[in-house]
Amino acid sequence: MSDFFSHSTAIVETEQIGSGTRIWAYAHVMKEVQIGSNCNIGDHSFIESGVVVGNNVTIKNGNMLFEGLVLEDGVFVGPHVFFTNDLHPRSPRLPQAKMRYKSHDWLYKTLVKRGASLGAGAVILADTTIGEYALVGAGCVVSHDVPAYALVVGNPARQIGWVCECGITLKEDGQTGVCPSCSRRYHIKDQKISPL
Amino acid sequence: MSDFFSHSTAIVETEQIGSGTRIWAYAHVMKEVQIGSNCNIGDHSFIESGVVVGNNVTIKNGNMLFEGLVLEDGVFVGPHVFFTNDLHPRSPRLPQAKMRYKSHDWLYKTLVKRGASLGAGAVILADTTIGEYALVGAGCVVSHDVPAYALVVGNPARQIGWVCECGITLKEDGQTGVCPSCSRRYHIKDQKISPL
Amino acid sequence: MSDFFSHSTAIVETEQIGSGTRIWAYAHVMKEVQIGSNCNIGDHSFIESGVVVGNNVTIKNGNMLFEGLVLEDGVFVGPHVFFTNDLHPRSPRLPQAKMRYKSHDWLYKTLVKRGASLGAGAVILADTTIGEYALVGAGCVVSHDVPAYALVVGNPARQIGWVCECGITLKEDGQTGVCPSCSRRYHIKDQKISPL
Repeated sequence: MSDFFSHSTAIVETEQIGSGTRIWAYAHVMKEVQIGSNCNIGDHSFIESGVVVGNNVTIKNGNMLFEGLVLEDGVFVGPHVFFTNDLHPRSPRLPQAKMRYKSHDWLYKTLVKRGASLGAGAVILADTTIGEYALVGAGCVVSHDVPAYALVVGNPARQIGWVCECGITLKEDGQTGVCPSCSRRYHIKDQKISPL
Repeated sequence: MSDFFSHSTAIVETEQIGSGTRIWAYAHVMKEVQIGSNCNIGDHSFIESGVVVGNNVTIKNGNMLFEGLVLEDGVFVGPHVFFTNDLHPRSPRLPQAKMRYKSHDWLYKTLVKRGASLGAGAVILADTTIGEYALVGAGCVVSHDVPAYALVVGNPARQIGWVCECGITLKEDGQTGVCPSCSRRYHIKDQKISPL
Repeated sequence: MSDFFSHSTAIVETEQIGSGTRIWAYAHVMKEVQIGSNCNIGDHSFIESGVVVGNNVTIKNGNMLFEGLVLEDGVFVGPHVFFTNDLHPRSPRLPQAKMRYKSHDWLYKTLVKRGASLGAGAVILADTTIGEYALVGAGCVVSHDVPAYALVVGNPARQIGWVCECGITLKEDGQTGVCPSCSRRYHIKDQKISPL
């Protein structure tokens, strides 16, 4: 077992947790969950079997991570983000729906790529990918893939700009984007972006 | 007492729970709650006195069910759905509002009829009825009644189609709706639907 | 220490809690939190160091109150309201973002003034002030200051009326607003309101 911390009121049922990771009060991590090193998992979080979390990930309080979700390195999940894994949800106990839940065909995946941020209370529909370093605004409803470095807001989420790897909105000058905070520079053309 | 399961960290203060129902970690079920058989109640849920839950209901994690709510048989409540029971909320401790909270006149009811599904993070305003087998999309804000079998999305929620009892969106051909998954058929006319 | 109640499963790490305040199951109140008297703090709530809560405040279940938040006397926080304190969130563990989190410059404040109400699942972006006796509808996304006594709904939140100190929507007659419940009267002119 690695050197991780879990609060006395937390339930941790997996041993696949990296060094330096901290799991806080009333959190519940099920068996068959993989969590990297140096992560922070807030109070009242729930992580279901099958979820994979990378290194340096921050999961704020009250998050529910369901089977089918992968969070890559350095992701930020704000408080109470809503992940889903079923596009046609019914109670599996409902007689008319039981057949659909006999196999795992109902399960759709969600991938949040490295360095991306999900704002408080964002709703992430299943079968989507959030691109690397994208920033999803608080309270957004995301029903389509989000491009890398994109800043999206609203319901449904739409892109209103680009963000730096450090999180600050880029200033655009022709085909160049510059971060006013850390001075990183990017090439932007035809709705595509790449670091310079 | 019937044969139900509750996790060692859950608080269950009612005995009116049906056989086969399971209540998970850090959940709190108050006294004077009625829950049917074969239900599943997720981690970090809270069920207030006066709530009535039918049979075969699935309540995902982090749900708060307040007085005035009835969930009929086979309902699905996604993670962190928001129920309310007060259309003009104030702190009952605020001197200017105290008078309004002396009786129970402030309390409005919510009814979710059999087989309906509420997506993750949906907000259900009080004094509404969700029709049988309706499907409320993730992140919706529902401020009016939802018809039976209706698929609603957005803020405010609006109807964009019809769903089968099994949960799949119907394909419409004139006045007939057919489920591409289970082949159930429906008659649709003048915004009304009935199984054939 | 004052005479407050905390449930046996709650974690309370501050002693600055006023008389008559009640803290319920699975709630976690960190050190260096200040809470007034006669408050009610629901199950599964989390209050971070640095938060200040006045007297007669009602905090419903599942709320996460983060550093930088001040709730004045008599405020109502509905279930699962989303507070934030970072307008450009990144994992502080992400190498590219670490520099921004070395000081506290990233932290923005939120002020909810006396008697205001925040509906279930409302998202309150940081760096905003909710005016006294304002009412924020359930599921709103608030990204700008809300005027005193304003009723706001939607995403983004927009004003659709005025509310009385008791919580009921005012009836407007020229420059006078009258509460149909408690008969309080207000002068309304040029988008400003004051009690008569």
